[in-house]
Amino acid sequence: MDKSLMQQISLVTLGVADPARAKRFYAEGFGWAPVFEMDDLAFYQMNGLVFGIWDKAQLAEDMLRPAAAPGSIALAHNVASREAVDAAISRLLAAGATLLRAADAPPHGGYRGYVADPDGHAWEIAWNPAWAIEESGAITFAL
Amino acid sequence: MDKSLMQQISLVTLGVADPARAKRFYAEGFGWAPVFEMDDLAFYQMNGLVFGIWDKAQLAEDMLRPAAAPGSIALAHNVASREAVDAAISRLLAAGATLLRAADAPPHGGYRGYVADPDGHAWEIAWNPAWAIEESGAITFAL
Repeated sequence: MDKSLMQQISLVTLGVADPARAKRFYAEGFGWAPVFEMDDLAFYQMNGLVFGIWDKAQLAEDMLRPAAAPGSIALAHNVASREAVDAAISRLLAAGATLLRAADAPPHGGYRGYVADPDGHAWEIAWNPAWAIEESGAITFAL
Repeated sequence: MDKSLMQQISLVTLGVADPARAKRFYAEGFGWAPVFEMDDLAFYQMNGLVFGIWDKAQLAEDMLRPAAAPGSIALAHNVASREAVDAAISRLLAAGATLLRAADAPPHGGYRGYVADPDGHAWEIAWNPAWAIEESGAITFAL
């Protein structure tokens, strides 16, 4: 068995039907300011992790899973290299995860795949060379 | 409008059908060690936040929402007082959230309510006097 992964959640992404409405809600309700936004998404730098809202159809396409099953949300665990993505996904599958998307390179760079835990909760396992992972596990958004 | 809430996620809780199976998966797959566990739940100290798995029927009962709608998961935002829970929930409702559970005191102490964002994603707004909130927003599990 590979060594343990850091106890770290890198990103929580909520799929949303109307990104403009969701951005308004998080601005007016929580008062949160995005660190980066586009028409269909926004990222917020949080306490050691990143929070994201993303058009739910695009999130579903990225996960290769229907938007509604079992909830349009993805947690992400980032690792330090492409090889570590493959190793983590192998380890998770051996422990009972289901493969949603075999790891490949997304349009924005890096490398990522998706698995579902035994209850269907989606985890993205990603290498994003732009996002630093501190020794504490803290993640900082960057382009 | 009240002042902004910290950009902070305190807790991510996944509802699970079989807590023993989920604990095994997170131990064997991710290699994560809980900071606290009972038969029906486990908490893991992460990078500035807490990750939880909880029997999905109990999570649904706590949220006052059916387990499957739209996914058995709750994000939590902790605040520093009981009054701040009420203020945050009022603010979120004014911004378009839907009330799931009006704030009250759970059996383990503190004070919490639940709202759903415009896409139905559940947020618990909680005051937990045992869990420190650092200036950075980092949350540390404690009993």
